[in-house]
Amino acid sequence: MGGDHGPSVILAGADIALERHPDMRFVLFGREEEVLPELEKYPRLKAVSTFHHCEVSVRMDDKPSQALRQGRYKSSMWRAIDAVKTGEADVAVSAGNTGALMAMAKFCLRTMANIERPAIACIWPTIKGESIVLDVGATIGADAQQLVDFSVMGAAMARAVLAIQRPTIGLLNIGVEEVKGQDEIREAGRLLRESTIEDLSYHGFVEGNDLGRGTVDVVVTEGFTGNVALKTAEGTVKQVASYLRDSLSRTLLSRLGYFLARGAFARLREKLDPRKVNGGVFLGLNGIVIKSHGGSDAEGTAAAMDIAHAMATADLVRKIARDLEIFNLGLTASVAPSDQAAERAQ
Amino acid sequence: MGGDHGPSVILAGADIALERHPDMRFVLFGREEEVLPELEKYPRLKAVSTFHHCEVSVRMDDKPSQALRQGRYKSSMWRAIDAVKTGEADVAVSAGNTGALMAMAKFCLRTMANIERPAIACIWPTIKGESIVLDVGATIGADAQQLVDFSVMGAAMARAVLAIQRPTIGLLNIGVEEVKGQDEIREAGRLLRESTIEDLSYHGFVEGNDLGRGTVDVVVTEGFTGNVALKTAEGTVKQVASYLRDSLSRTLLSRLGYFLARGAFARLREKLDPRKVNGGVFLGLNGIVIKSHGGSDAEGTAAAMDIAHAMATADLVRKIARDLEIFNLGLTASVAPSDQAAERAQ
Repeated sequence: MGGDHGPSVILAGADIALERHPDMRFVLFGREEEVLPELEKYPRLKAVSTFHHCEVSVRMDDKPSQALRQGRYKSSMWRAIDAVKTGEADVAVSAGNTGALMAMAKFCLRTMANIERPAIACIWPTIKGESIVLDVGATIGADAQQLVDFSVMGAAMARAVLAIQRPTIGLLNIGVEEVKGQDEIREAGRLLRESTIEDLSYHGFVEGNDLGRGTVDVVVTEGFTGNVALKTAEGTVKQVASYLRDSLSRTLLSRLGYFLARGAFARLREKLDPRKVNGGVFLGLNGIVIKSHGGSDAEGTAAAMDIAHAMATADLVRKIARDLEIFNLGLTASVAPSDQAAERAQ
Repeated sequence: MGGDHGPSVILAGADIALERHPDMRFVLFGREEEVLPELEKYPRLKAVSTFHHCEVSVRMDDKPSQALRQGRYKSSMWRAIDAVKTGEADVAVSAGNTGALMAMAKFCLRTMANIERPAIACIWPTIKGESIVLDVGATIGADAQQLVDFSVMGAAMARAVLAIQRPTIGLLNIGVEEVKGQDEIREAGRLLRESTIEDLSYHGFVEGNDLGRGTVDVVVTEGFTGNVALKTAEGTVKQVASYLRDSLSRTLLSRLGYFLARGAFARLREKLDPRKVNGGVFLGLNGIVIKSHGGSDAEGTAAAMDIAHAMATADLVRKIARDLEIFNLGLTASVAPSDQAAERAQ
């Protein structure tokens, strides 16, 4: 029910995702008078979907506390998350109110054992390919242990979504010598260096310009800095695109040049297309919830569902629990004991 | 003596700046065997320069504490800063070691009355023109009062360097509803809203994407976030440029298009030229020190000196002292009492 466009875009996106992943099944929550007529347009989707009517839906401008008060147990958002808790769904995807979604997800799913706070992870396009960046805005501030938790969760997501077996991890820091390293970042670095998780490679500190460069597979930071970095990068892309448009439209010759090179500009647009990396993943809860951007179109919504599919297939929550167990116990990550550890953790 | 290229680039830059500002005078500090032969190449510059030989120079990889221990009172860096203290110079410009420069500047010039911490301000190119962003890395963290100090200092710099009479101020924050606003940012916002400085207009919170958009004239944040944002934007510009080069070189037609539109790309390069906005300004000390980027060429060095000229001409330190006085006393910023306040503050 959420996002700028409501069910029409969600269902169109689901239909695209289903074409790419024929093993997908959908559990849909919303108002029947809005959802069902739309669903009729996608017979293939309808055939693999279960629909639940919900009278209440969270509004985009509801405060998280308000959404919880009015929408707990009965809103479409709550019930989608609850379907993950009950096991009816593997992942919940919503284009709704981010604050409300995080509040409900925390309340309903609770944080994993040994995790104090969830993080929002995003996929960051780089010159080399893609990286995972977290936290991009779940909570402000993080102590050393939380930064380590984010590293373990980000590495698990990189393995699942980017198919990198032994992801490299960097802690976001600043380079001015005299102030290098807040205490918690230095301490997190020490803990990661001594880590015994075999399929995680700690690289060290990285700076803001390493994000676009793709220096590491996973960049870890607290939510305030991560959110500012993400939005600064988005703004800078728009800024450069605006300069480029202005420059190219100024003379007849440059307009002709643009016309001839329009294939190249189409490739550039595709490369910078924010829809391709749509989806903020909530990590650290007993279940995966993905926030699709409210302004996304069908293609963007499908991208968020692609991530959902990768994470469900990878059995991510269980793997994160195992890695954290290994990390915290300081065990060697040989396969047999770690699986036992995962059993114990459940 | 600092930077990647030493005196050759500094003197070439000074000569360019001198052409633009014929009222400039230079006091040069360095090793005579390196500086004097270079200076011979610029008779015009030589005519308006005083040279002081310094046996010691701070190395780019010296730790700030090391630089202070070995270079206090006698290094070229120290003596350039000290020339500001004694009044021999209005502004010190260095391309040397940032950490050492800040440590020496703090030690030699001391922070202004009522200012606890200096900030580094930079000029940020936007779609609309230019903004001032601070702190981009002097110190990690800032309380409400320090964020207010940064706002007052940034506004004074915007008046001096960007010639904006009543600059708008934004506090950098994040948009996720449930976590919006660290306490110190909210408190700084309250203080700024109630401010009585007439030539400062508090806009409210801004987000990372407002930086490139030019939503406000001055963006205020603490040094960790500011540094990450600055480097993220720099990295993103390089990333987009790299995508663009790749796309344009891929087919014969796009290469032809590039050739025809090469004027447009030259304009784009100029627009994105980091040399044009070179210069991190140390604010909050009893004197202005400007850090030119270590890798700058002559044109970039000249840009840092342009800023120096604007700030010296504007009598910036005295104006900041006056504004802070007004702010802290809660006086109305009518001209007469504020000048009296500035007298008292001295």
